[in-house]
Amino acid sequence: MIESRAVVITKPGGPEVLEVQTRSVRDPGPGEVRVAIEAAGLNRADTLQRRGAYPAPPGAPADVPGLEFAGRIESLGAPILGDWKVGDPVMGIVGGGGMGQHVVLHERELLRVPEGMSLTDAAAIPEVFLTAYDALFLQAELAMGEVALVHAIASGIGTAALQLNAAAGVTTIGTSRSEAKLARCAELGLEHAVHTADGLFAAKVQEIAGGAQVVLDTVGAKYLNENLKALRLQGRMVTIGLVGGIKAEANLALILRKRLCWRGSVLRARPLEEKAALIQRFSTEILPLFAAGRLRPVIDEVLPMKDASEAHARMDASETFGKLVLSWSQ
Amino acid sequence: MIESRAVVITKPGGPEVLEVQTRSVRDPGPGEVRVAIEAAGLNRADTLQRRGAYPAPPGAPADVPGLEFAGRIESLGAPILGDWKVGDPVMGIVGGGGMGQHVVLHERELLRVPEGMSLTDAAAIPEVFLTAYDALFLQAELAMGEVALVHAIASGIGTAALQLNAAAGVTTIGTSRSEAKLARCAELGLEHAVHTADGLFAAKVQEIAGGAQVVLDTVGAKYLNENLKALRLQGRMVTIGLVGGIKAEANLALILRKRLCWRGSVLRARPLEEKAALIQRFSTEILPLFAAGRLRPVIDEVLPMKDASEAHARMDASETFGKLVLSWSQ
Repeated sequence: MIESRAVVITKPGGPEVLEVQTRSVRDPGPGEVRVAIEAAGLNRADTLQRRGAYPAPPGAPADVPGLEFAGRIESLGAPILGDWKVGDPVMGIVGGGGMGQHVVLHERELLRVPEGMSLTDAAAIPEVFLTAYDALFLQAELAMGEVALVHAIASGIGTAALQLNAAAGVTTIGTSRSEAKLARCAELGLEHAVHTADGLFAAKVQEIAGGAQVVLDTVGAKYLNENLKALRLQGRMVTIGLVGGIKAEANLALILRKRLCWRGSVLRARPLEEKAALIQRFSTEILPLFAAGRLRPVIDEVLPMKDASEAHARMDASETFGKLVLSWSQ
Repeated sequence: MIESRAVVITKPGGPEVLEVQTRSVRDPGPGEVRVAIEAAGLNRADTLQRRGAYPAPPGAPADVPGLEFAGRIESLGAPILGDWKVGDPVMGIVGGGGMGQHVVLHERELLRVPEGMSLTDAAAIPEVFLTAYDALFLQAELAMGEVALVHAIASGIGTAALQLNAAAGVTTIGTSRSEAKLARCAELGLEHAVHTADGLFAAKVQEIAGGAQVVLDTVGAKYLNENLKALRLQGRMVTIGLVGGIKAEANLALILRKRLCWRGSVLRARPLEEKAALIQRFSTEILPLFAAGRLRPVIDEVLPMKDASEAHARMDASETFGKLVLSWSQ
């Protein structure tokens, strides 16, 4: 057991409820490592948890947010089967606690930081690239030549999805409520930008590409019927966020007639074996694309961990382009 | 071109709009056969088409209903690559025209009638067994040891699903609004019967099995939220019918949190290559189970084709147990 600092949600509320406090973190057991965290990416789920709307799953600290981290291995349990050493730069996802200085996880959940990449850059990778990769390519089985509609294209998830699609030979139609953000996404290679100030986009997607084969849905209720209309025959939609509400009238005739497939997905609550399987596949197939320069984290700003409240406020205001990262050494 | 009799929808309406008339049927082209139909199973889709609510897809006759048939090959186009001869007993699905005396289709869409089976029995197989097999096993990937919730368990689709599940080591929970029909399904091997007079069943499914891995949904809107509640974590639902309406409020939080997969599916409008792929797989994997006596068509009654109106009226009244079959030779 060691003492460790952590950003703590002192009570449900606004960004002001966050405080850095001291917490104890347990020693790693068999097959586990303890990581000294250098930096952690902020995600919308952290702000939901702060508001009391997204409780931590069993096994994660209830009041320390943070779903991803980058740092160095600080101690190893025994036995460890992999080629891990104290000091190795690693990154990963956790059910919570990423905004602490230390975290314990299983060696099969670790991703090695690509050679030459800083830990603040690495901290912006795991959650959004794993989520986008899993949702688009493993669940929706997105494939070369297809067209994917990605909402909130300027977000962390959106910019990750855009790059993964480009690497896979997939055309992206990206939506945003901000014209300025769409212009920046064009620089990242976005083929088709759709401004959705009014919440309508299906007609535009039909016009651009005759519909999308896949929709990456981070919005939920508010976009449901537009999403169903935007899909082609045998289209697939993966819903990974519900910032636009949880209840909506669905047109089942569209789902039936177009033979659509609609999945819901969350990473956070998955059991060890599922997370480990995803990590291993990502490690083999996607990490090399970072080393090769075909993928890169898109970082809006790196702030000191003590400014977590400011970072949350910026995310609440949807002001960011790409990821906010919080660092212990700034 | 030959002259052929056919049940015709003279105008949209009740069972009384059906009439036997004469139609011409074209000669088979390369790779095609013409079948002299002996009998055809009646499906709910036929009654929808009769009411004007389910138009025939391109390529199918607009006013002759009938989605399945059994008969004998009457003539062969050239070339024919398979081992087909005039007189061979065959069955299959079509986009329409099954209630005619002749139909032309591609040889890759033909199923051989199992040895020793009558053509009236065979006529009750294709649509419901292909639909249930495709939806449950190919689309929902139902597997040994899982639990499937099947609505309208006493229907043609329901009784086919029940038998396929039993053959695959799957436990079935079946619903019906009729206690008498549920009792008869118990004789067919139904493990768990749920009477749904009030439209509620999710609590019962949770009680019986802790939820179902798969739902075969023939109802649509009216059962949507009960279906979502009845599913387990990572459950799959395939919607193949909408007799309970097309619009319903969906709880997206359930879809997300339970990581559900919801598909819509129709056979009728699929292109040749998809129908042929399903037929070939069914032929290899499922037809032998009929020959082995593990599957059998469940037939309520065989009526003469001239009594199509009476058959439609009985289906409209949901009076049937299993399939109604119409025959040209009775």
